Amino acid sequence: MTQKTSDGNYFEDFTLNQEFIHATPRTVTEGDVALYTALYGSRFALNSSDIFAMNLGLEGAPLDDLLVFHMVFGKTVADVSVNAVANLGYAAATFGGLVYPGDTVIARSQIIGLKENSSGKTGVVYIHSQGRNQHGDMVVDYVRWVMVNKRNPKAVPPEPSVPQLPTHLTVTDFTVPSEFDLSTYETDLAGSEHLFEDYQVGEKINHVDGMTIEEAEHMMATRLYQNTAKVHFNQFAQGESRFGRRLIYGGHIISLARALSFNGLANGFKIVAINGGTHCNPAFAGDTISAWSEVIEKSELPGRRDIGALRLRTVATKDQDNSAFPLTDGDGKYLAATLLDFDYWVLMPRRP
Amino acid sequence: MTQKTSDGNYFEDFTLNQEFIHATPRTVTEGDVALYTALYGSRFALNSSDIFAMNLGLEGAPLDDLLVFHMVFGKTVADVSVNAVANLGYAAATFGGLVYPGDTVIARSQIIGLKENSSGKTGVVYIHSQGRNQHGDMVVDYVRWVMVNKRNPKAVPPEPSVPQLPTHLTVTDFTVPSEFDLSTYETDLAGSEHLFEDYQVGEKINHVDGMTIEEAEHMMATRLYQNTAKVHFNQFAQGESRFGRRLIYGGHIISLARALSFNGLANGFKIVAINGGTHCNPAFAGDTISAWSEVIEKSELPGRRDIGALRLRTVATKDQDNSAFPLTDGDGKYLAATLLDFDYWVLMPRRP
Amino acid sequence: MTQKTSDGNYFEDFTLNQEFIHATPRTVTEGDVALYTALYGSRFALNSSDIFAMNLGLEGAPLDDLLVFHMVFGKTVADVSVNAVANLGYAAATFGGLVYPGDTVIARSQIIGLKENSSGKTGVVYIHSQGRNQHGDMVVDYVRWVMVNKRNPKAVPPEPSVPQLPTHLTVTDFTVPSEFDLSTYETDLAGSEHLFEDYQVGEKINHVDGMTIEEAEHMMATRLYQNTAKVHFNQFAQGESRFGRRLIYGGHIISLARALSFNGLANGFKIVAINGGTHCNPAFAGDTISAWSEVIEKSELPGRRDIGALRLRTVATKDQDNSAFPLTDGDGKYLAATLLDFDYWVLMPRRP
Repeated sequence: MTQKTSDGNYFEDFTLNQEFIHATPRTVTEGDVALYTALYGSRFALNSSDIFAMNLGLEGAPLDDLLVFHMVFGKTVADVSVNAVANLGYAAATFGGLVYPGDTVIARSQIIGLKENSSGKTGVVYIHSQGRNQHGDMVVDYVRWVMVNKRNPKAVPPEPSVPQLPTHLTVTDFTVPSEFDLSTYETDLAGSEHLFEDYQVGEKINHVDGMTIEEAEHMMATRLYQNTAKVHFNQFAQGESRFGRRLIYGGHIISLARALSFNGLANGFKIVAINGGTHCNPAFAGDTISAWSEVIEKSELPGRRDIGALRLRTVATKDQDNSAFPLTDGDGKYLAATLLDFDYWVLMPRRP
Repeated sequence: MTQKTSDGNYFEDFTLNQEFIHATPRTVTEGDVALYTALYGSRFALNSSDIFAMNLGLEGAPLDDLLVFHMVFGKTVADVSVNAVANLGYAAATFGGLVYPGDTVIARSQIIGLKENSSGKTGVVYIHSQGRNQHGDMVVDYVRWVMVNKRNPKAVPPEPSVPQLPTHLTVTDFTVPSEFDLSTYETDLAGSEHLFEDYQVGEKINHVDGMTIEEAEHMMATRLYQNTAKVHFNQFAQGESRFGRRLIYGGHIISLARALSFNGLANGFKIVAINGGTHCNPAFAGDTISAWSEVIEKSELPGRRDIGALRLRTVATKDQDNSAFPLTDGDGKYLAATLLDFDYWVLMPRRP
Repeated sequence: MTQKTSDGNYFEDFTLNQEFIHATPRTVTEGDVALYTALYGSRFALNSSDIFAMNLGLEGAPLDDLLVFHMVFGKTVADVSVNAVANLGYAAATFGGLVYPGDTVIARSQIIGLKENSSGKTGVVYIHSQGRNQHGDMVVDYVRWVMVNKRNPKAVPPEPSVPQLPTHLTVTDFTVPSEFDLSTYETDLAGSEHLFEDYQVGEKINHVDGMTIEEAEHMMATRLYQNTAKVHFNQFAQGESRFGRRLIYGGHIISLARALSFNGLANGFKIVAINGGTHCNPAFAGDTISAWSEVIEKSELPGRRDIGALRLRTVATKDQDNSAFPLTDGDGKYLAATLLDFDYWVLMPRRP
């Protein structure tokens, strides 16, 4: 009689180049979109209005890029990070074809690096994951690395292998879907008159608003993504943890920060790449999240007169006023109230 | 470097006849409808069943009228009432074309009145707002007035201008969508045998049931409507307010009261007009909402033998038994437990 | 002036063979499906992916069987169990045609048994309910019995009548939708390699994961089903009850247990029958639900080489580790932590 319940993979279960096809394939729908709006209050016009999206050359309103990311990420958890001690980082995330309600997303992963830690009790696993739609087109592609427990501390470690990962992407690393035509972009409907030319490198923007998180909200979000990480859902078990609380999925904070960034970045209509992100401190129900952003880099896009790319750092904090743009202390350590330091590229219309 | 974050309009920023096209256009979907049902538990058959709606001559189940109202109202907040001290009232709301999943709603407003208060620190702004669908058809149209702070108390006040507003509408002020044909209306599926002829002016109905509100629920609702009023979401800031709590969007109470009114008014299948409403006291998470209604007026409709109109007052209370129809104290002041006094017209089938 | 509010039926209001057509008909949508995923985190591939479902011969992903059950059950409450003292049991539930987004479900019931209790204050009502789609096809059919208060204790009792009900169904009692063709079933997408042949009668499976319930979640679920039972929603009234709390709809626990059972029973792709279920103890917000299952019976299906049926007992507990499969105490009484003892048949692919 075989064990029917999966307890997930431990460090010694992974091998270099190992491939996974993850359960469960997911048809994304207008229902998911409505829940995403209800959970984060996002107001970017491209994802809110079919008509607005069609005016930009699309077939209708595509799903928010982060919703696609969460759907794919969620599927990888059962195979890759159920026994993770820590999510160490992610890098080189690019978004491919737009995802529309009715599309079906499948996630695959490959192990691209393995390195046992000196303690001999854990190791770091590097995973390259890709989400594809029903036509086989890439919709999101990224690398993450996690620290995973060994089941048996005496298991022989694999040959150490650590992939080369870029600190950040540049405009030649990502693609702008060719169907976009921004010539009739309407700034009044989009909610701001500030376009690509108006932003300067080094400029900081306080997004002002704050949003308090409830347990029901972050759990509904994380279940919607079919993410099964136990720490988000089980108060009976978490009560015994060092936090004593359910931990909020880091992606929930990213989505809240992106939604809050609308006030100041309303025309940053699409995320095209994620360079990396640090979840500096855990978030819990009851925290009030607010955010600020800094323009790190600006870039024109080859072959496009209508769109430019802004590289942004968006920082989410809890229970803070962000008018002084809090981030680190005098020693460069993240402040206790800093939850997220997120580095990504958005597209923004250029002035005609 | 221009300020990228909008801090909203202050009293001196408004001018008479000023027009707004509000962000963000919104395609409403079956996802929004499902969330509306999950948040309020509404059971009116017209909005619940495509088949029932098609039997009445429609193309499918239209959105609940209040869901349409909230969607339009929500869009006006960022331009009109972010710096509001108080929502003073609304009037003359009519509903036009039915809204179906897949339709895209856009909101526009015009300033139709301005009057500085004697304190010199605030003023009253009268706004005429209209929601339209993708064909340009009016779907909802109303006036509201709010008290808004001045940024600079020394700013020169505008010429006072106060619009004439009706205390209530009559049947000639609103339209019944012509596609309605009630000849095959099924009372068993609708949930009640009581039709237009059975209600009498002065009759009071205790809707009996109660619904306790959670923070996650009212915030999900208000974000679904893309309403950005800060007081609903930010416990960190609200903790410093005189209430110490997040305030619940008044429209949430209206929708709960309407859903509760099903038990007693199940055949009041459509709201056609809102004469006005008073949010007598603020509502908070943990409050249990119940409701009662009074029939204020009955009217036949020109050219329709199958439908009549009832003008109703629906009162929502908190933590109360409503069998004595509580409303005001001996001095005519609203009781502390009275949350809403809502005056509106519904359509109801007439006996063949 | 007639009483407009329904206070529901009391024991003496029911007559043998009485029939009900329940309000409110309900078109089920992708919005309902998204909410179901967000509320329970279910990962069964059949209900999650149109492509996966089409590969099995269906037109798209059908609704989760339990979502259909809850929708039908919810509609019966206002007519049948508003004045119920206790839900005593249910039996002989079978699922018929698959339900897809866009279908409209209507519920009908017939009273098939009545028996006054010896106290003279209450009686037991046996109700046979059936949900049908817009084509009149049966989608779910079941019997339940509830203890209902008498309005007037002196009302003359009806002739006692108790229907014969099966303790459990067998494979000849239920039907497998003929459109299913499992020949290309993909176990990697489904999330498990364990098929019909791998399970043995008597085998117990600890589903490991736990899920803490919030008030907002169970109320949103129960309203989504348009279930109006007062005890789930009204803290003001429930504060006076012997529990002092809102009670969670028993079906919410069933759905959570089914979703948790994915880890161990991922290929149990469809519920075809429910033999019965006991809600051993009430559940409240804050409870962390986990589950274990036992294989009670295995059966091949007449005329099908690709599918077998497993009869399962799934037990839900609260705030428990389930590695010792807790159920009853030494006297055979359910433990205080046992919430649900659920007996049902699922379909599972057979090895080619």
